[in-house]
Amino acid sequence: MNFLEERILKDGIVKEGNVLKVDSFLNHQMDIELFDQMGAEFKKRFEGKPINKILTIEASGIGIACVVAQHFHVPVVFAKKSKSINLEGEMYVAQVESFTHKCQNNVIVAQKFLNPEDHVLIIDDFLANGCALQGLIQIVQSAGATVEGIGIAIEKGFQSGGRIIRNLGFQLESLAIVESMDAETGNVVFREQ
Amino acid sequence: MNFLEERILKDGIVKEGNVLKVDSFLNHQMDIELFDQMGAEFKKRFEGKPINKILTIEASGIGIACVVAQHFHVPVVFAKKSKSINLEGEMYVAQVESFTHKCQNNVIVAQKFLNPEDHVLIIDDFLANGCALQGLIQIVQSAGATVEGIGIAIEKGFQSGGRIIRNLGFQLESLAIVESMDAETGNVVFREQ
Repeated sequence: MNFLEERILKDGIVKEGNVLKVDSFLNHQMDIELFDQMGAEFKKRFEGKPINKILTIEASGIGIACVVAQHFHVPVVFAKKSKSINLEGEMYVAQVESFTHKCQNNVIVAQKFLNPEDHVLIIDDFLANGCALQGLIQIVQSAGATVEGIGIAIEKGFQSGGRIIRNLGFQLESLAIVESMDAETGNVVFREQ
Repeated sequence: MNFLEERILKDGIVKEGNVLKVDSFLNHQMDIELFDQMGAEFKKRFEGKPINKILTIEASGIGIACVVAQHFHVPVVFAKKSKSINLEGEMYVAQVESFTHKCQNNVIVAQKFLNPEDHVLIIDDFLANGCALQGLIQIVQSAGATVEGIGIAIEKGFQSGGRIIRNLGFQLESLAIVESMDAETGNVVFREQ
């Protein structure tokens, strides 16, 4: 069991409806030393890849991505979820559906921040049905850039996102893959990696 | 002139309506090494303060806050801008008005992440009219916690937010204070610090 799985068992809370609350260390309060460990682990898993940029999506991907980026010495671009009046100029747009928020969002990245020379590592906190991730992949490909890999903190292995993304041939590395969880007992079972 | 002022002159773009676009290094694409320099500078300016937590607000405050937090070895809490279905339980709520997005938002922090023992450093990317910041201060005070200081990347010195916050007695440190800018010439004038 790795450091993140241990932390999930210690501080995660399982709620009805397959909700795993990790807001005390991952996506509301953020344990920066944990993020640093995640960065070191992603660096190892994507060793040798010519990554020159990290792409993530607001809001809860940003903190992880920025700390991970220190291990790769690259800038981070975060995709925005709705058109802001400050986001002018040419933009890449993908439409994604959010499991948590039960709504559709436009995912937007200014074109000037992704180009065909970019080798991109995508980072996010959660992977469930993979809609957000597919939107990010679509944006990287619209730019003619290369997806070198995808690093996720927690994957819900019982949802289809991870399988779809791996079937497409991407190197997807999830630090913890939840196979099942039980709101009554609070039990969480991880896939062996 | 400090490193951030230099970077603004190099890569910032002045737009009509007193908009300063810094999206190539601060709030869309993020220069993590610049954030690290900002962290070192805030550490110096808040030396001796018993800071045990950093509070910021989604989305563009998060990246800066997480990298700054590495200099203080403390966790980061980010306030959310709208009620999410994953954010259950007791919450502190403040209503703030956004200059950029021309709308009102509820700023929300789960009560369990702020308590009377907390000594909080508030971090954000921009300070203009100070509404978001006043919401964050209100939330810290609702929790009975202490605002030890406020660290801002770029303050618009020609708007009232900075003066109001300083008049309230808070230690507000802005790494760059823009006195005036001119969309036609692209010129930016900083307040001497």
